[in-house]
Amino acid sequence: MSNIKRVLVTGGAGQIGYALSPQIARGAIYGPEQKVILHLLDIEQSKTSLEGVKMELLDCAYPLLVDVLTFTDPFDACDNIDVAVMCAGFPRKPGMERKDVMEKNVAIYVVHGKALDARAKKDVKVVVVANPANTNAHILAKSAPSIPSENITALTRLDHNRAVSQLAQRADVHVEDVKNGIIWGNHSSTQYPDVEHGTIEGKVIEERLSADEDKSWLQNEFIPKVQQRGAEIMKMRGLSSAMSAASAACDHMRDWINGTPDGEWVSMGVQSDGSYGQPRDVVYSFPCKCQNGKWEIVQGLSLSDVTKAKLQLTGDELVEERSLAMQCVHSS
Amino acid sequence: MSNIKRVLVTGGAGQIGYALSPQIARGAIYGPEQKVILHLLDIEQSKTSLEGVKMELLDCAYPLLVDVLTFTDPFDACDNIDVAVMCAGFPRKPGMERKDVMEKNVAIYVVHGKALDARAKKDVKVVVVANPANTNAHILAKSAPSIPSENITALTRLDHNRAVSQLAQRADVHVEDVKNGIIWGNHSSTQYPDVEHGTIEGKVIEERLSADEDKSWLQNEFIPKVQQRGAEIMKMRGLSSAMSAASAACDHMRDWINGTPDGEWVSMGVQSDGSYGQPRDVVYSFPCKCQNGKWEIVQGLSLSDVTKAKLQLTGDELVEERSLAMQCVHSS
Repeated sequence: MSNIKRVLVTGGAGQIGYALSPQIARGAIYGPEQKVILHLLDIEQSKTSLEGVKMELLDCAYPLLVDVLTFTDPFDACDNIDVAVMCAGFPRKPGMERKDVMEKNVAIYVVHGKALDARAKKDVKVVVVANPANTNAHILAKSAPSIPSENITALTRLDHNRAVSQLAQRADVHVEDVKNGIIWGNHSSTQYPDVEHGTIEGKVIEERLSADEDKSWLQNEFIPKVQQRGAEIMKMRGLSSAMSAASAACDHMRDWINGTPDGEWVSMGVQSDGSYGQPRDVVYSFPCKCQNGKWEIVQGLSLSDVTKAKLQLTGDELVEERSLAMQCVHSS
Repeated sequence: MSNIKRVLVTGGAGQIGYALSPQIARGAIYGPEQKVILHLLDIEQSKTSLEGVKMELLDCAYPLLVDVLTFTDPFDACDNIDVAVMCAGFPRKPGMERKDVMEKNVAIYVVHGKALDARAKKDVKVVVVANPANTNAHILAKSAPSIPSENITALTRLDHNRAVSQLAQRADVHVEDVKNGIIWGNHSSTQYPDVEHGTIEGKVIEERLSADEDKSWLQNEFIPKVQQRGAEIMKMRGLSSAMSAASAACDHMRDWINGTPDGEWVSMGVQSDGSYGQPRDVVYSFPCKCQNGKWEIVQGLSLSDVTKAKLQLTGDELVEERSLAMQCVHSS
């Protein structure tokens, strides 16, 4: 039994959880050989629905899925887990101030951090999906001092995938022909989708998309499109982008665990070491290479003045968010 | 481009469609090497939502997903398709008579049949997921005379997987240790989950579950549990079992295309040839082996009198459903 991996999904009864669990059970994180036990956590009020999700997962008769355990206690849910995908969060509701939402989420992530600290494997790999993802991950790491902070990350792979997909559509190529996009900073509207360093069919993006109308698209449309994609999906579907968030969370974990191809990188919200002049001690999205289950920030990329200014903006926001969050921690 | 497979999902904006498309795009039907183009069809009123689903699928940047095409015209949607998973249907609403619902669904499946007939590849493989699945498939086949009727099937793999999962849980073994369950007949509450022919860890089910309490469970609890599982999930989640239906549809198609292991079978709603004394010219769930992209009804199983009576019951229901459906066809 020791080679079975335990994967926690928080917010297990929610829409992202519902889209995520079957993908994990089909091997989207660990591949087609590795058996898993799913730990699904949700709040007491969602207990019946969570049991329904468990029933469905069992009804799928997935060969890789050894068991599904459901929890309303975060500590029990974290017992001996190898991976955690944190979808639990409190969404902003009409009339709520930003600080009110932050307080709710900080409260969740303090408890979940303590639970990880007490009960997860010390080499647990964590990705926070729920917004504000970067700052939730920061709070989580601070609340789990026995877990190495590099093991607690935030999801910006959804933005990364969105950027890659937009570029592929624009250039009329397959997504596999677009490499090394980057999302810098916060998973928010200040995120910076960078097109200075990626390639399309091996060519620098701005050379491959060099027609006047393409240049204009890159300068004026591409960045807001990626930044505001979540809101656009919400408008179209009347529901949030659960499927693509779930899929990106699997991609994030798979690449972290199994590695990125030589010469390629992906975007991950990770503990900042101050690379590229960005603030330390925040969870910041950088281009990362993964090998042997470790991520490493890609170094030595030259940044234009425009890009530097954008990085500053999103870095400043993260510092401000951290400050708001830490006030919530101290006042709680 | 000729080796790219085109997969149609009808009801593409619905809950099953939303759960199904990402699984197909991750290779759950054709495996991890085969590129696909998804054709998503839904009604005009769901057009915006369908576009939202397409946006999310593109945002997933799936390496196997070459393109996503959306349609509100069933004929265009069927153009050159290799596989169709039919999730489009009209659910029974409060106050509706059974005949009213049947009329709505017959109207859908007559048109979709004509569309398949006119535009799909002649060797297209079709599975109907939407209820009444078997009778919808019958109408579809009748409306698509140029498509071999053996290529049009109905989903009972969800019931099959549910039965396997229940047996595995009861015996405290993994689902892979349960082989050759059978669902006979209609995907309705008259379906007959058969435990006379399957095995658990290589032992006949009734021998492996031979303790008094297990016997009682097999006789009194197992069958209604499988038959009523959909309603139970609905009660728990407040939503239908979209994830497990989607997953079962992938399993059905994967096994049909890639084959079943030697000595094993699965349950599929297929064109009845009168095997086991069952009515001909209905879509009836039988134990099927698959090889070279063809299914074949497993022959020569001996049936107890109890089982024979149950088969009669579900067969009679299918004949009656067919009669009701054909009235709807002729009166329309």
